[in-house]
Amino acid sequence: MSNSEFQQVTESTTQVERPNPYGPNPADYLSNVANFQLIDSTLREGEQFANAFFTTEKKIEIAKALDDFGVDYIELTSPVASEQSRSDCEAICKLGLKAKILTHIRCHMDDAKVAVETGVDGVDVVIGTSKFLRQYSHGKDMNYIAKSAIEVIEFVKSKGIEIRFSSEDSFRSDLVDLLNIYKTVDSIGVNRVGIADTVGCANPRQVYELMRTLKTVVSCDVECHFHNDTGCAIANAYTALEGGARLIDVAVLGIGERNGITPLGGLMARMIVAAPEYVKSKYKLHKIRDIENLVAEAVEVNIPFNNPITGFCAFTHKAGIHAKAILANPSTYEILNPHDFGLKRYIHFANRLTGWNAIKSRVDQLNLNMSDEQCKEVTAKIKRLGDIRPLSIDDVDSIIKDFHSEITTPQLRNMDAEKGDDLNSLDIDAPASKKAKRSQ
Amino acid sequence: MSNSEFQQVTESTTQVERPNPYGPNPADYLSNVANFQLIDSTLREGEQFANAFFTTEKKIEIAKALDDFGVDYIELTSPVASEQSRSDCEAICKLGLKAKILTHIRCHMDDAKVAVETGVDGVDVVIGTSKFLRQYSHGKDMNYIAKSAIEVIEFVKSKGIEIRFSSEDSFRSDLVDLLNIYKTVDSIGVNRVGIADTVGCANPRQVYELMRTLKTVVSCDVECHFHNDTGCAIANAYTALEGGARLIDVAVLGIGERNGITPLGGLMARMIVAAPEYVKSKYKLHKIRDIENLVAEAVEVNIPFNNPITGFCAFTHKAGIHAKAILANPSTYEILNPHDFGLKRYIHFANRLTGWNAIKSRVDQLNLNMSDEQCKEVTAKIKRLGDIRPLSIDDVDSIIKDFHSEITTPQLRNMDAEKGDDLNSLDIDAPASKKAKRSQ
Repeated sequence: MSNSEFQQVTESTTQVERPNPYGPNPADYLSNVANFQLIDSTLREGEQFANAFFTTEKKIEIAKALDDFGVDYIELTSPVASEQSRSDCEAICKLGLKAKILTHIRCHMDDAKVAVETGVDGVDVVIGTSKFLRQYSHGKDMNYIAKSAIEVIEFVKSKGIEIRFSSEDSFRSDLVDLLNIYKTVDSIGVNRVGIADTVGCANPRQVYELMRTLKTVVSCDVECHFHNDTGCAIANAYTALEGGARLIDVAVLGIGERNGITPLGGLMARMIVAAPEYVKSKYKLHKIRDIENLVAEAVEVNIPFNNPITGFCAFTHKAGIHAKAILANPSTYEILNPHDFGLKRYIHFANRLTGWNAIKSRVDQLNLNMSDEQCKEVTAKIKRLGDIRPLSIDDVDSIIKDFHSEITTPQLRNMDAEKGDDLNSLDIDAPASKKAKRSQ
Repeated sequence: MSNSEFQQVTESTTQVERPNPYGPNPADYLSNVANFQLIDSTLREGEQFANAFFTTEKKIEIAKALDDFGVDYIELTSPVASEQSRSDCEAICKLGLKAKILTHIRCHMDDAKVAVETGVDGVDVVIGTSKFLRQYSHGKDMNYIAKSAIEVIEFVKSKGIEIRFSSEDSFRSDLVDLLNIYKTVDSIGVNRVGIADTVGCANPRQVYELMRTLKTVVSCDVECHFHNDTGCAIANAYTALEGGARLIDVAVLGIGERNGITPLGGLMARMIVAAPEYVKSKYKLHKIRDIENLVAEAVEVNIPFNNPITGFCAFTHKAGIHAKAILANPSTYEILNPHDFGLKRYIHFANRLTGWNAIKSRVDQLNLNMSDEQCKEVTAKIKRLGDIRPLSIDDVDSIIKDFHSEITTPQLRNMDAEKGDDLNSLDIDAPASKKAKRSQ
């Protein structure tokens, strides 16, 4: 096949430039996809992760890193959880970070009185509104919940501090109860109301519908908190923003109760596709890797192999059919640009799925001069050895260099063969197949 | 506070039993949420994972495990990728599995002729339809694509083998081009058409809208393939089923190009919430852990700490406020039941966020007799030590046993104190706080 087949397809030149199809839909006038804020809860929800034990010094280090990245809020464990929790909260409030500092308490005056004395910029109040939680957790009815909420809200506001009121387990709460309580707290005035998928049961269309409904009832901002038990925490956060939510709770690597919540890095991967200018101007994306490493080390976990952005293979391309197109234009198989995150792309050419385009690229990197036909021939050799065992880059380079020395100094062929090692055996025993397939 | 506060809330008894609110919406008559099928692509997409090198024996072991689990289809690497790929495909076809065996080829007669001779039950044909791929990968226009598709489809059907036609990079393809080609192949007759989010850019509402549109154009089943670059692969799969897709491509742990595709285990977590009877009757969920371990070992990765279902903390509850309710009724903080997956729940009580309900449960496990007030007192001791350093279960048990021996044999108090170790020092230096908070 000739190279001419790979020429640019002639597309109609009259086509107008369209806006980013993965950006906010202009029809969704409630969408906050390009106007969202982050509440990082690594030091609250994340402290509820099974492995988490943060010293004061580690909490401060994490808070500073999050602030440097650019999160809008940092949420801390309740000061009534333990004496150390209270003094850590006070210490972080004194750091003078750009991010606003929040603490997270039960909807109870005892907690509120302690919280407002810590120096926080805001208090996040939560109470379970689902039948499950009312029955098995706190045992209070909706009237009692509304009454406590109003008392706590008025008290916190009287101290000049931001207040958020959130239900817990919102997606298993009665819709009328929910809307009633949100309408009540919105009418007395709160900075935000919160929706929490405490058990991780929600799905994207359900989230969207609840957001749209809630936004017709309240005028304040809506914050969302999604657990990841069923793997939808990033998608639910995105869909919530489409439906009018403004703030998303995240944690570094998603650490939290059970398998955690919406991860900071994963949400950034989602949002940069939808609102690249907003995300790149607001957050220091190249810091994600360092923050994840910091927290992973503190809680003694490894970065998941398949983590968005920072997983070891997130920007690795293997199959020949992919590698070929990536070499021509990275956008063909990448919606994320590794350079936006201070990372690099990697073409995995040392395997049996490799294609001659990837090998040709390697030949060029090695500064060898070989024709396309010769690259195809050496690719066939590499694929044959790849069938036998895993290949290292050194293996592939050896095969290429060997082949190159053969074609440039054919008189040495027999001498090389006398070495008798695996690679040379392959040279002799397996003549270049004429059937070598392109770009599989 | 008295225990009576935790009595069951009196809810209206006239309330009728409602269907599972996380189940398929009866209004969505196109939904296949309770009627889906799985195409496992661990041995095709998964072979494109950076770390994957499967021997013939390992491929057979994985295929058998997937078949035992109950996947409907197993997709294998193209037989033209390498000689070994072809012979492995033939070997797996001969195993006589219940699952149908598929192989995945380019839309080209050269590939199709090899594929139909391997013994597979079906052939999955793919071609890039996006402007990106047409320009930088294969360089063919839509007329050429349609012509090749028809030729390959008619040929495969003539051999009595199932045929799927899929576009690649569907979400960046021109909608009119897409619908045109799907309408064409549907009219000549195919088993399935496929939608592929090759770069992982799609979001749930976009997926739903494309499914709804596509289902008005074709009468055959729709299969979906979602990459996970932006963390939405599970949610997109779920939303696709809601919109009328029937089959989802999965891989064990999601392994595939870059950070992979919809993971088998994660999708099961999502689907069991929506369609518990269907999922439990069709798939052996308690095998998920073994299959994940098998594949993780083969490709030399660890199970991510936050993996749905099998992550080490997926069923671990830490905060006191959670642990208390979980002890009363697991449904309060769990949408998944660990027993459905052959796993167990774990209440993490050895930390400073612990609550007295969790400690009381431990006291009962230790078969000690202590009042609620005494449990609250020992909880305060545990929280104070938890502020100082990470606690092991042994630490907590020592504190509890020590406290128990104090209250039952007070005359020994001074003797115990003479041991002078950390735990006893704490007993002496820190009298039981009257401010100990319940259930934080």
